[in-house]
Amino acid sequence: MHDQTIRIEKDSLGEVQVPIDALYGAQTVRAMENFRITGRRVNDMMYLSLAKVKKACALANYQVTDLSKDRCDAIMQACDEIIEGKHKEAFITDAIQGGAGTSMNMNVNEVIANRAAQILNKPIGVYDYIHPNDHVNRAQSTNDIIPTAGKLTAINLGVLLLQEMDLLSQAFEVKAKEYGDVIKVGRTHLQDAVLITMGQVFHSYVSVIQRDMKRLQNALTELQVINLGATAVGTGINSIRGYREFAVTNLSKFSGRPFVSADDLVDATKHVDSFAYVHGSLNTFAIGLSRVCNDIRMMASGPKVGFNEINLPDRQPGSSIMPGKVNPVIPEVVNQVCFQVIGNNQTIMMATESGQMELNVFGPVLFYNLFESFEILKEACRTLRVHAIDNLTVNKERVHDYVEHSLAMATALVKYLGYSKVSEITKQALKENKSLRTVVVEHGLMTHEELDKALRPESMITPQ
Amino acid sequence: MHDQTIRIEKDSLGEVQVPIDALYGAQTVRAMENFRITGRRVNDMMYLSLAKVKKACALANYQVTDLSKDRCDAIMQACDEIIEGKHKEAFITDAIQGGAGTSMNMNVNEVIANRAAQILNKPIGVYDYIHPNDHVNRAQSTNDIIPTAGKLTAINLGVLLLQEMDLLSQAFEVKAKEYGDVIKVGRTHLQDAVLITMGQVFHSYVSVIQRDMKRLQNALTELQVINLGATAVGTGINSIRGYREFAVTNLSKFSGRPFVSADDLVDATKHVDSFAYVHGSLNTFAIGLSRVCNDIRMMASGPKVGFNEINLPDRQPGSSIMPGKVNPVIPEVVNQVCFQVIGNNQTIMMATESGQMELNVFGPVLFYNLFESFEILKEACRTLRVHAIDNLTVNKERVHDYVEHSLAMATALVKYLGYSKVSEITKQALKENKSLRTVVVEHGLMTHEELDKALRPESMITPQ
Amino acid sequence: MHDQTIRIEKDSLGEVQVPIDALYGAQTVRAMENFRITGRRVNDMMYLSLAKVKKACALANYQVTDLSKDRCDAIMQACDEIIEGKHKEAFITDAIQGGAGTSMNMNVNEVIANRAAQILNKPIGVYDYIHPNDHVNRAQSTNDIIPTAGKLTAINLGVLLLQEMDLLSQAFEVKAKEYGDVIKVGRTHLQDAVLITMGQVFHSYVSVIQRDMKRLQNALTELQVINLGATAVGTGINSIRGYREFAVTNLSKFSGRPFVSADDLVDATKHVDSFAYVHGSLNTFAIGLSRVCNDIRMMASGPKVGFNEINLPDRQPGSSIMPGKVNPVIPEVVNQVCFQVIGNNQTIMMATESGQMELNVFGPVLFYNLFESFEILKEACRTLRVHAIDNLTVNKERVHDYVEHSLAMATALVKYLGYSKVSEITKQALKENKSLRTVVVEHGLMTHEELDKALRPESMITPQ
Amino acid sequence: MHDQTIRIEKDSLGEVQVPIDALYGAQTVRAMENFRITGRRVNDMMYLSLAKVKKACALANYQVTDLSKDRCDAIMQACDEIIEGKHKEAFITDAIQGGAGTSMNMNVNEVIANRAAQILNKPIGVYDYIHPNDHVNRAQSTNDIIPTAGKLTAINLGVLLLQEMDLLSQAFEVKAKEYGDVIKVGRTHLQDAVLITMGQVFHSYVSVIQRDMKRLQNALTELQVINLGATAVGTGINSIRGYREFAVTNLSKFSGRPFVSADDLVDATKHVDSFAYVHGSLNTFAIGLSRVCNDIRMMASGPKVGFNEINLPDRQPGSSIMPGKVNPVIPEVVNQVCFQVIGNNQTIMMATESGQMELNVFGPVLFYNLFESFEILKEACRTLRVHAIDNLTVNKERVHDYVEHSLAMATALVKYLGYSKVSEITKQALKENKSLRTVVVEHGLMTHEELDKALRPESMITPQ
Repeated sequence: MHDQTIRIEKDSLGEVQVPIDALYGAQTVRAMENFRITGRRVNDMMYLSLAKVKKACALANYQVTDLSKDRCDAIMQACDEIIEGKHKEAFITDAIQGGAGTSMNMNVNEVIANRAAQILNKPIGVYDYIHPNDHVNRAQSTNDIIPTAGKLTAINLGVLLLQEMDLLSQAFEVKAKEYGDVIKVGRTHLQDAVLITMGQVFHSYVSVIQRDMKRLQNALTELQVINLGATAVGTGINSIRGYREFAVTNLSKFSGRPFVSADDLVDATKHVDSFAYVHGSLNTFAIGLSRVCNDIRMMASGPKVGFNEINLPDRQPGSSIMPGKVNPVIPEVVNQVCFQVIGNNQTIMMATESGQMELNVFGPVLFYNLFESFEILKEACRTLRVHAIDNLTVNKERVHDYVEHSLAMATALVKYLGYSKVSEITKQALKENKSLRTVVVEHGLMTHEELDKALRPESMITPQ
Repeated sequence: MHDQTIRIEKDSLGEVQVPIDALYGAQTVRAMENFRITGRRVNDMMYLSLAKVKKACALANYQVTDLSKDRCDAIMQACDEIIEGKHKEAFITDAIQGGAGTSMNMNVNEVIANRAAQILNKPIGVYDYIHPNDHVNRAQSTNDIIPTAGKLTAINLGVLLLQEMDLLSQAFEVKAKEYGDVIKVGRTHLQDAVLITMGQVFHSYVSVIQRDMKRLQNALTELQVINLGATAVGTGINSIRGYREFAVTNLSKFSGRPFVSADDLVDATKHVDSFAYVHGSLNTFAIGLSRVCNDIRMMASGPKVGFNEINLPDRQPGSSIMPGKVNPVIPEVVNQVCFQVIGNNQTIMMATESGQMELNVFGPVLFYNLFESFEILKEACRTLRVHAIDNLTVNKERVHDYVEHSLAMATALVKYLGYSKVSEITKQALKENKSLRTVVVEHGLMTHEELDKALRPESMITPQ
Repeated sequence: MHDQTIRIEKDSLGEVQVPIDALYGAQTVRAMENFRITGRRVNDMMYLSLAKVKKACALANYQVTDLSKDRCDAIMQACDEIIEGKHKEAFITDAIQGGAGTSMNMNVNEVIANRAAQILNKPIGVYDYIHPNDHVNRAQSTNDIIPTAGKLTAINLGVLLLQEMDLLSQAFEVKAKEYGDVIKVGRTHLQDAVLITMGQVFHSYVSVIQRDMKRLQNALTELQVINLGATAVGTGINSIRGYREFAVTNLSKFSGRPFVSADDLVDATKHVDSFAYVHGSLNTFAIGLSRVCNDIRMMASGPKVGFNEINLPDRQPGSSIMPGKVNPVIPEVVNQVCFQVIGNNQTIMMATESGQMELNVFGPVLFYNLFESFEILKEACRTLRVHAIDNLTVNKERVHDYVEHSLAMATALVKYLGYSKVSEITKQALKENKSLRTVVVEHGLMTHEELDKALRPESMITPQ
Repeated sequence: MHDQTIRIEKDSLGEVQVPIDALYGAQTVRAMENFRITGRRVNDMMYLSLAKVKKACALANYQVTDLSKDRCDAIMQACDEIIEGKHKEAFITDAIQGGAGTSMNMNVNEVIANRAAQILNKPIGVYDYIHPNDHVNRAQSTNDIIPTAGKLTAINLGVLLLQEMDLLSQAFEVKAKEYGDVIKVGRTHLQDAVLITMGQVFHSYVSVIQRDMKRLQNALTELQVINLGATAVGTGINSIRGYREFAVTNLSKFSGRPFVSADDLVDATKHVDSFAYVHGSLNTFAIGLSRVCNDIRMMASGPKVGFNEINLPDRQPGSSIMPGKVNPVIPEVVNQVCFQVIGNNQTIMMATESGQMELNVFGPVLFYNLFESFEILKEACRTLRVHAIDNLTVNKERVHDYVEHSLAMATALVKYLGYSKVSEITKQALKENKSLRTVVVEHGLMTHEELDKALRPESMITPQ
């Protein structure tokens, strides 16, 4: 008896059962059987990018008169629907898949072919009028389509991340100004050093984020060089003269990104190092951001048995067992995102190094990690800004108290009393738990008035 | 006007809106607001483990007369439901979260408290009879509960992985026997070397997998040492004498795993290196498995312009542009899983190294990566076995042809003709594209009969 | 005119100029030309191990009557001289070299051959009586010799490291006892938590080191399984029946290590994962040790604007510009060693994963990093113990002061006053900068006598 | 009795014994006692850079009238001697050292002070006229001197590496032209794909190296921003107005590098991410170069049982046991250098992430790895070029034979016969071990003449 819920499709390897209403087809079903790995789908943004690429290629094929107008129109309309966010349920291949992304490419080809068939009032699953390979994938190869769509996706995700990085930077800038005149004791080697301002501390975070933004922007420009039209190995086999230029121009127009065709298409097809380089900039940012969060957690340590220089907003009760405890959960989660990104970098490095001969087949795992890093860093920046930095306050009293009782001003006395005398006084003050000022006066070395003048913290915090 | 879809809960930070029918409560809602990072939930197995731990603790509290029987029964029943797979929709906190797992712990506490209330015919969201902290979390801290549940989860996932590793090993063993007498040319430095059998090649994969299994089993035993009852920092504060022993015993019984209480509970609470060590064994396996897949892909290279020594079963059409091409997508996806695991190891290393003072707060990202590695390695082993190894065949003809035409038997002539003469002959054979045998006979150095005896491949493949 | 300082040697690639008195020969000179990479030599211990292996093989060849007694004796004597530390100047190949270690193997073969010739009163550089390949390397291949010598070296270096790990562990144990009754405020999330003792803190470091020792010991046992006698690919080609067993037995005797022959010699020849596994245990230790040093530096932070709970011995003036400053340079250098080891692990992982077919040719870089990790970890343990831990003291006054003024005892009041009341009191105490005790008494909630009983720190620090 | 070989120096921690003629002093001796880790010295180039920095600062101090002319002249002369390569034997501190580089800084200060004393005919080891701190280190801190000298060193090493990268790129370019018309079968997924030229393959390596050069150049420009004059924490404490500008200008002049003062000196003092970013570009290069070497080794595999498409020059006999075997030792050693660099990146990442508060104290291990990567990559590029690429040849006959017998031209028939028919024919050809051409003619699908026209390899290799 016939199963009413499935249809049968055939390919060169035999028959495949497909759910009767599915927009995807045989290759997608095979992929689902072959790659049951993570239980997670490819990033939605990648499908949007693939639809834009497919649209650009369909139009290019029409422009070089290699595709009929009705097919081109139907394909472009199907692509537009995907770009609008429709048909998500039909994109189902596992994020980690073999075959350099053939499965995700064919998934898209099949969905577009079937949806285009519907638009043209033809049955799905038949492919006699619009075929996933012959018409949708026409003049394309997984080997040029997937890297191109990956670059578009990375650029789009990169722009979103850059926006959040900038907002986070601005949030620190606000704090730098708000606390620009709060003098504190700087620490080197975690040991009391010399004076600095809270503003300078916060501004140093602005500087590191801005530097990372510049690096990311710089790296992203590499991704504007694409191999669309290179087909299987870079030689453009089975594409028609003129197609490549049209396709790149169309994609630039549809995506709003200034893509250019690679000078060396063979190189651009086989090498994925530009993705590794882009993620390298995310990795550098993750390292920097983790360090920032480490500092924030340390400055917020206490309240009694820690530095207690800053207060983070309470986000949730910190402990079910210790009443009144509030933990720095926001920087903690950001640290963890950074660790995840640093791990993703490792995966991407391995994937990049392992390419062989005319192709790197490890694109799927590379993209999976690259896209995740963009997204979780974006969320981390937003989370840190909104839940921690915007409402962060400085414990001015505590910070000032530290300045008063520390020996951080010893360095400033060197020019009055000499290095060795100051060293001696400092050790005595520490031993007897007295202020530096007290010991200096006790020894009759300087008067209170002289000390007032010598020890103005304000004079110690500005680079000359 | 009152919103009928929500209820209001209060905690020490204020009011929280909770969906009216939700089994979770205020802390879970706060966590959802605070940690919107990956969009992915904590692993289901972790919730099952947490339910087992909570059940063990509830009973222990009852056993030391610190919890009433009706509360204990209701809590245990709620736990059993979770263990059976119910209420999954109520466990919603993001896999990467701050606070050392406080949010996932409180999520479970709230669900159990509310479900227990229902069991006792009391309203949810009120907590006056069964409180998430006072009754469900009683004598517990996130700091002992999460590591303990993490260890149980890792052991359970480890057992599943070990089964698949063993099956994969057996699949290679079958091939080792099937092709035990097929002699081939071994390659060192990718250069033609001396003879070996396909059976020996396949068996070497058995050996590496078996070694990795032993390593994993050994590492997993470390996880049987738990800090349950250590509460906040290892001192067991706020737990009652006897509770800890009962809790550990109960958990062993409920989980079927032979847990023991750590001798040094402070150490066991602050250090997570045992998890890093366990993942280190997964990392070593990933390195080994990736190497195996590299070899398989290389032996399957061709068909004409590659080694072409083995045939992998066709899993999907390899190319939309190149007819008849079939790619080694299964080992390719396994390689990618290995890269992912190696990246996860990096994340776990960072998380482990970053613990500070009496706690390591980076458990959530550590567990996220650890559990994923177990699961994707398990799927990778299964996928490789079922879709590639079970139906792998050897191209006996090609392999034999290589033996005939290579110079791999040159080494065996050294004892007859001396190293330098053989070296000379080998170079001539290579240059003139003749067989070694031909050149030897041409030079009148040995007869065909002598060569037949000297060059029996069978004599060259067995360690003496 | 003839250059009196060189001699000419020939090999299959042509003539080579060798310094006239050099014990090494043509292959070593070629290696020096080919591999000018790091400017560093292979680890001395590796040469000692190679000499032991060569000695064991020479005797085995004699035992199976495949080497004359005078040659065997001369070779063994030459080996003994190397084992005693002589001829170091003749071992010169770069630590990072191509060819799976062929160059270091041939360097040793040439030195032994020439030195044996000298012993037999024959000229060096001639090799007609004792040939580096035919006699010294007899029945050996780089592919079994280098891994075997590498395993012996790693075991020997491992034993030395284990001794220093144990001494470091003991040093922490001494401190754990010395300060076993000093109660301090524990920190979780770097926030004030509950009480703990300095002894418990120090003991937690004992536990982690002991755990790492156990892991290393366990991993090292894998290295007792060797492929000596496997020759080129594991089939033992060109060795004589009986040779392998003699060689392994001899090596066990000469080295004092209980080596056994691998069951799967093909596997043991092509796979280097056991080295990666051993280094994985060093990596885990590095992660743990770095974390310990992070804590030590944090506890030593201050003196005024930090935790200041412990004093590290002054090792050097900390600053040329800030008088009286002393920095925690010893844990700082240990942190850096840990980072180096973690980096070495990365290199070793890459090298291990990159093996192909019947060999992994990346042994040289693997060994270079493995041996370095053993040595620098050993020095780090010693340095930390002698220069930091042995003379570490606890600031009892400061630590006690923290206990008095913190709110760490709040948790202990929960059973008297309830969670929510204690939470309220804690927040008031914090806000008004009063002690918990003061606020409780002010509110008339408990008397001083009751508080004395409830707040005995001693009762809070022992697991029940 | 007095030891004639030593002199006694004193510092704030007590007396120190110094070899009587040593140019270094007490701090260096303390460093040698404290840091006995690797047995390796800091990179020589770093000392040259430090001398240039010290010279620039001495002159700046004179310019702001804070140092007398005779002292300034003597210091500058001592610096010049170091810059010329003298006094190397006096720079002895271990490459991995605590204290953010204080020891290497003081080592230089002491050598300059003593050498300047000699120049002024004063005794060494006394420091009453020229003091290491008061005069040589005047207005400096380890915290600005070491990063500044590190940046100068990295730039100088980077320039040397870039030269070798460019030469390697040119060597590949030569091969790309030499073999531009040699058509070969391209491989994707290691499976026979479509045609490509050897020239395109070699040019793809040019492209990847050129891209990495651009990345490195870009990253190096970040290092021109220095914190010289920032002293301890970026506030310039204890330096005189005008000094910073003079120092930076002087250094630019003495070094020939266009240094600028950082806008945010606090940031520039505490953060070392620019070094991590620079090494990130080396890491990306290492990944790319390793991939190139993997391909080269694969194309050189054989001679009989491998691809055998290219011949690498013989560099050394490949095997002591297999006559006539020559191994690709040069790309093998380059692979290993790449693994080392990738490991170094890991160390640098850890060191960078671990900075705390106003300083990152892990500069020594960071610089050790950074400088090594520059140097070994430079040697690797040179070695690969000179010993492998310059004399690499292509096996034209073999490559052409592959083209003839492969099915790589199947794709070109799609436009004549359709995808499914070609797919069918391809499978038959493969099964029956016939050429595609033969099967097509046998089926009467096309004539030889038609095939000649359709299957012109030349038409398949150029992007349209």
